[in-house]
Amino acid sequence: MSSPAGHDALLAALRAAVGSAHVLTAADVDLEPWERDWRRRHRGRALAVVRPGSTDEVAAVVRACAAHGAPIVPQGGNTGLVLGGVPDASGTQVVLSTARLNRIRALDEANLTLTVEAGCVLQAAQQAAEAAGLWLPLSLAAEGSCTIGGNLATNAGGTQVLRFGNARDLCLGLEVVTADGRIWNSLRGLRKDNTGYDLRHLFIGSEGTLGIITAAVLKLVPRPAAQLTAWAAVPDLAATVALLGVAQRGLGPALTGFEVMNAFALALVRRHFPQLAVPLAGVAPYAVLLETSDAEGEAHARARLEAVLEQALEDGCAADAVVAESLAQARTLWHIRESIPLAQAEEGLNVKHDISLPVSRIPAFCAEAEAELARAVPGVRLVNFGHLGDGNLHFNVQCPEGANAAAFLREHEARIHELVYDAVQRHGGSISAEHGIGALKARILPRYQDAVALDLMRAVKRALDPANLFNPGKLLA
Amino acid sequence: MSSPAGHDALLAALRAAVGSAHVLTAADVDLEPWERDWRRRHRGRALAVVRPGSTDEVAAVVRACAAHGAPIVPQGGNTGLVLGGVPDASGTQVVLSTARLNRIRALDEANLTLTVEAGCVLQAAQQAAEAAGLWLPLSLAAEGSCTIGGNLATNAGGTQVLRFGNARDLCLGLEVVTADGRIWNSLRGLRKDNTGYDLRHLFIGSEGTLGIITAAVLKLVPRPAAQLTAWAAVPDLAATVALLGVAQRGLGPALTGFEVMNAFALALVRRHFPQLAVPLAGVAPYAVLLETSDAEGEAHARARLEAVLEQALEDGCAADAVVAESLAQARTLWHIRESIPLAQAEEGLNVKHDISLPVSRIPAFCAEAEAELARAVPGVRLVNFGHLGDGNLHFNVQCPEGANAAAFLREHEARIHELVYDAVQRHGGSISAEHGIGALKARILPRYQDAVALDLMRAVKRALDPANLFNPGKLLA
Repeated sequence: MSSPAGHDALLAALRAAVGSAHVLTAADVDLEPWERDWRRRHRGRALAVVRPGSTDEVAAVVRACAAHGAPIVPQGGNTGLVLGGVPDASGTQVVLSTARLNRIRALDEANLTLTVEAGCVLQAAQQAAEAAGLWLPLSLAAEGSCTIGGNLATNAGGTQVLRFGNARDLCLGLEVVTADGRIWNSLRGLRKDNTGYDLRHLFIGSEGTLGIITAAVLKLVPRPAAQLTAWAAVPDLAATVALLGVAQRGLGPALTGFEVMNAFALALVRRHFPQLAVPLAGVAPYAVLLETSDAEGEAHARARLEAVLEQALEDGCAADAVVAESLAQARTLWHIRESIPLAQAEEGLNVKHDISLPVSRIPAFCAEAEAELARAVPGVRLVNFGHLGDGNLHFNVQCPEGANAAAFLREHEARIHELVYDAVQRHGGSISAEHGIGALKARILPRYQDAVALDLMRAVKRALDPANLFNPGKLLA
Repeated sequence: MSSPAGHDALLAALRAAVGSAHVLTAADVDLEPWERDWRRRHRGRALAVVRPGSTDEVAAVVRACAAHGAPIVPQGGNTGLVLGGVPDASGTQVVLSTARLNRIRALDEANLTLTVEAGCVLQAAQQAAEAAGLWLPLSLAAEGSCTIGGNLATNAGGTQVLRFGNARDLCLGLEVVTADGRIWNSLRGLRKDNTGYDLRHLFIGSEGTLGIITAAVLKLVPRPAAQLTAWAAVPDLAATVALLGVAQRGLGPALTGFEVMNAFALALVRRHFPQLAVPLAGVAPYAVLLETSDAEGEAHARARLEAVLEQALEDGCAADAVVAESLAQARTLWHIRESIPLAQAEEGLNVKHDISLPVSRIPAFCAEAEAELARAVPGVRLVNFGHLGDGNLHFNVQCPEGANAAAFLREHEARIHELVYDAVQRHGGSISAEHGIGALKARILPRYQDAVALDLMRAVKRALDPANLFNPGKLLA
């Protein structure tokens, strides 16, 4: 299908499927928004960008591509961090954008469910829930741009996994277009359904390699009466793990956020965003942001959170702590946490990781990996932060102060990845906690994933997408 | 492999794999405990019962059976309700009992995880968590006999799904023996891991047809400071759904149980277990059992639960209500709820269903199905009870008062199933909420499950178990 004549026939079939206005090629328009990734590290080349407006049109696009042997790259908000949603450089892949599949199909208050199409932006789904006095507890930095389809295809994480699980845990059913261009619909909104293999969880997290998610039913919960945020200075990572235990026992399911940041991560925020007042700066090597979501109200939330912090001070797992006095203060605390990646970018290029570990192994892992990094690259600076309650760290590495970041990356990036991932492996962790594999980590996956698991995954891929139509080169390279 | 010589060679290989003492045949012992199902509706015939003592021995058994073409029926506590764990009548199937794989491998307090082998009885796992001051929130009637492997193979439900999800939602990782006799191990206890397809959820709920679960990592939570139970008399099912909303908004995640029972279900309990004092008997056509699990303590739990019940009385979605005054009273309330199936059995044979619906559809479904049943079989008596918070009803049908139950079943059982399942289908529900498909419902599954879903499931089965070695005739007949 790499001949121009084949291309023309495919384009004609795609135009017949979705209408000429929704088949874009480089002859019509600059395709960069669909060809370049969020972090701007890669630009592919698409044969075309197709924007179906309905599930039936998605199915027609899949059948057209299958007939012409053209690979399909599904794309939502294109906010992925592992090159999972952009085409390769071949110019033969069709980007299927879900942008026009953005309807809220239904909200069932008694069933606590929201049915949305794949291209619906996460924030729009959150707002639909809020308008009904309910809560869609999935929250991540890209929520203003990322889509529900992408969230599910990558099993997105974020800041509320501690309490509500990953994106997959919020999904009760899917609508999916399969490799043979048929539609599987499980959008019934059932909380219990043991009638066969759980295909839902197979498609969720498969990064567009097994089928195209076109709609989903999401679980909602009642909105909490109050949310409250606190900030604690913590002497070391073992104390952080102990503080997590105190908070879990004291707050139970009201604990909805537990984020850790090392002092250097906060120093970068202070350097590049001096208008943000980082509390308790310099008091201890680590800070923790805690969030409670209370079913009763502000006063109750405050009393409970203060009791937890008092216990922590008494136990020595916090050196000092403050509770936000207002919603504005709480927003500032979250804003500090969310500014870390931006401060890192201001500081210069860096080596990023998205790792997870058993919570109990975090102190030992960090001690070991940090020491090895210091030995391997003297002067290296570690930006260690993340969702400690889920065992998820963004264990990022910045070049030595004053060094040339680009040269540092060229010389050390591969070695640093290997050093960190090997340590992760030794401590029973994962090299991708929440971002996925995409094209970025597909080649290194076999080094760190179980060989039996890889064989099973390849067998599943062959079974559901024998022609390798969906997102080739991603996840399983 | 149906020749006696083939059998002898297989038995020799099995004895070599696990030791002679752990290969049982009808020549040695009555195999009824492994061949007959829990409800005693079926007795199969096994070629042998094999009891491996380690994961490596399970793998050796699988390789021996694969080499001799002998199908394997994995069996845990043999408490399943859909003939999923017993052999067929052919005498050619090998029952693989997980009884000896019953070790608690690890408990990680900081990570809140418990690693157990598949043959570990659920109650033993619960007790291991309790001994560490933690809680494994999976609870079902058979917990004294059922095993973790069976719970996961069938994705068990139970009484705490409302808050904690099904068995699959409590599992962070598995150890599985595959059809080629290899071992896949994902027992790392990670809360986030996006490194490929979620094989864990594929094996969970696959009823032993894709692989043999040999161990699992389960999530634990801190034990609540207090649990409190209440009983409400409710005028109709719409009011029950409204009461659920009041309880969810008022208790938030502290609401851990919400069970509904119709008046006839409770009348049967009063008739057959007169020693159990059913509260508010005769006050209203439905009763609801509510349970709250509170992170603070008894007084707080009581105040919150009473506030919910006052609101419900005010809204008219409860006619009357009582809160248990002691642990003993709370146990009695649960005991009444759990006695319904036993009271039904005392009353005589009946037609059982394990259905789920969107919670919002329950009133309309029940009205329609109840009217149709009354038209189809005049005098029929409906025992309607279940986990309403999950949309899961055990919508069981008892013969008319004084009729011959056996004759009634012979004449009406198939028609009643069809009538109920067709109504479930029209209302967007599932014909198996928590019990699974097994051999019992395998033949009717294609009538009610999506055709595309069935094709995908068959493709997955062929990919992971091409020789149809694991539990043939179950789930996908």
